[in-house]
Amino acid sequence: MALRVRIAGTGTYLPECLITDAEMDARLQVKPGWVNKKTNVVKRHFIQNETASRMGAKAARRALDAAGLEFAQIDCLVCTSATMEQPIPCTASLIQKALGQEQSGVPSFDVNSTCLSFVAGLDMMSYMVHAGRYRRVLLIATEVASKGLNWQQKESAALFGDGAAAVVIERSEDDCSRILHAAMETYSSGAHYSEIRGGGSAMHASKYTEATAADYLFDMNGEAIFRMASKLLPDFLQGMLGATGSRIGDYRLVIPHQGSAMAMRLLRRKLGIAEEQLMYITPDHGNTIAASIPMGLHEAIRQGRIQRGDRVLLLGTSAGFSMGGIDFVY
Amino acid sequence: MALRVRIAGTGTYLPECLITDAEMDARLQVKPGWVNKKTNVVKRHFIQNETASRMGAKAARRALDAAGLEFAQIDCLVCTSATMEQPIPCTASLIQKALGQEQSGVPSFDVNSTCLSFVAGLDMMSYMVHAGRYRRVLLIATEVASKGLNWQQKESAALFGDGAAAVVIERSEDDCSRILHAAMETYSSGAHYSEIRGGGSAMHASKYTEATAADYLFDMNGEAIFRMASKLLPDFLQGMLGATGSRIGDYRLVIPHQGSAMAMRLLRRKLGIAEEQLMYITPDHGNTIAASIPMGLHEAIRQGRIQRGDRVLLLGTSAGFSMGGIDFVY
Repeated sequence: MALRVRIAGTGTYLPECLITDAEMDARLQVKPGWVNKKTNVVKRHFIQNETASRMGAKAARRALDAAGLEFAQIDCLVCTSATMEQPIPCTASLIQKALGQEQSGVPSFDVNSTCLSFVAGLDMMSYMVHAGRYRRVLLIATEVASKGLNWQQKESAALFGDGAAAVVIERSEDDCSRILHAAMETYSSGAHYSEIRGGGSAMHASKYTEATAADYLFDMNGEAIFRMASKLLPDFLQGMLGATGSRIGDYRLVIPHQGSAMAMRLLRRKLGIAEEQLMYITPDHGNTIAASIPMGLHEAIRQGRIQRGDRVLLLGTSAGFSMGGIDFVY
Repeated sequence: MALRVRIAGTGTYLPECLITDAEMDARLQVKPGWVNKKTNVVKRHFIQNETASRMGAKAARRALDAAGLEFAQIDCLVCTSATMEQPIPCTASLIQKALGQEQSGVPSFDVNSTCLSFVAGLDMMSYMVHAGRYRRVLLIATEVASKGLNWQQKESAALFGDGAAAVVIERSEDDCSRILHAAMETYSSGAHYSEIRGGGSAMHASKYTEATAADYLFDMNGEAIFRMASKLLPDFLQGMLGATGSRIGDYRLVIPHQGSAMAMRLLRRKLGIAEEQLMYITPDHGNTIAASIPMGLHEAIRQGRIQRGDRVLLLGTSAGFSMGGIDFVY
């Protein structure tokens, strides 16, 4: 069943502070060129005075502007991020406040599936928009990766960037824009391949010591994830294609989660995605966690790589281990 | 539009360690009887060796048993909790693992709206079940309040309990069970009235010191929340009733978030809910955050206070500040 849902506008916000690959080489105490060679990330942004909610609010305003809408025309706000600003309340409430909409009453809550949070949120909310429960929903992924990086895990630390992306969806009244299919699968055999163990109820912040410090930082077994993704992604994509009787060549653009340059090569080789079909923004942004896919979507629209009527595939993996995809006509 | 969604089964899990009001008096160093007088909580459970995911898995198994289903008949798992076990991955993945379903592929993600997480999750997922995207969804709220309590804020610390509740929903094939209406509103003017400031990106665990310890614990301005709820809830409920042309007397049972005994009195007085219409489980459980409403639903079914065909209203408030409700025929 195709859902009558349309992307009305997108926006992004990147922190002012830009860290080049050369600066990252110095920070990680590696040879010049190491970061670029290992990650292909030329620059990423790190917050200084920004907060997740203020970044999210800025991206949201830009998405509203792009859609030609006022906040008053939005009736639901969903924060789709892996990182939270504070444990209580949810980041969506803090974004509503940062937007100066404290009295709006617009329902605001969070959806979290780590790097796939935006995909999971868009998937869910599309059913509510299609059914008319909400006319227009503002989805916001705003990520602060930089506070949780482990500088001893140099390859992973070199990979991430901070930033926010927002997308307004609305009921499609034309005969063109549609969500054709969406899917998600979770294999928790990989639950501990990428994680932050400390900071929740299992290991409260009060247990933080020099000896446990690494438990409160991002810990990734890149090889294990790569093996899982290599094994599972081809079948997952075949399932998605099969659901609509499509071939990969039918997509104008595939917008993947920018996990790493290595993950991008995997996608191209294993899934047969042509270079011109793949949206690749890793060099300028790094991996911005759940903001990565909507940021890719924003850049694709801004750069004119997709037009109304084009078929697009959002595709990604996340900690969990999960895979998710959304097949739509822009 | 009524949604063809049916509650197929419910289950709960309470930690083995039970703390009586007398034990809580001693722990808080207050006069005997103070806790009972202030909170009306006679007992609450606190985890010892349990974890959020293992509690959630136990509640989930009981909900599946109650529904006469196997896990293989579930096609989506949503964790609807305010507290997380660890920052990455989402708690839903860890529950899938605790259920021994690591290879199932069942999509697993989290929805967070603090105390209203279950209501928000049920609301969203009901559209996907109605549309046939998922046949059966397992919603699990599993909360560890005890690790984040501030023992200096005695009234708030005395109020909370740990525990988990799970609900299986499926497409309703009879002419009886339906979701008639659901609503949510968020007023972030109250975003900082109940919060945990530390532990997210704004104040990472590494900033934890003796001086900042309270920032990593639950901080509630009970009076401010009470004023907001008193002012906003009556209109919110009127809006819900108006949407279906109903009166409060039409409900067999109102199952509220068990915020506090004071909140329960507010509901009865301000909203005109009769005593026999109000599900009240605070004395035996305390406030179990987002597990509180599904736990009340489970107890209502177990105690025979609702039968198939009865009209039920779930109603609550949460940090954010949000209000939410779901009006359904059980």
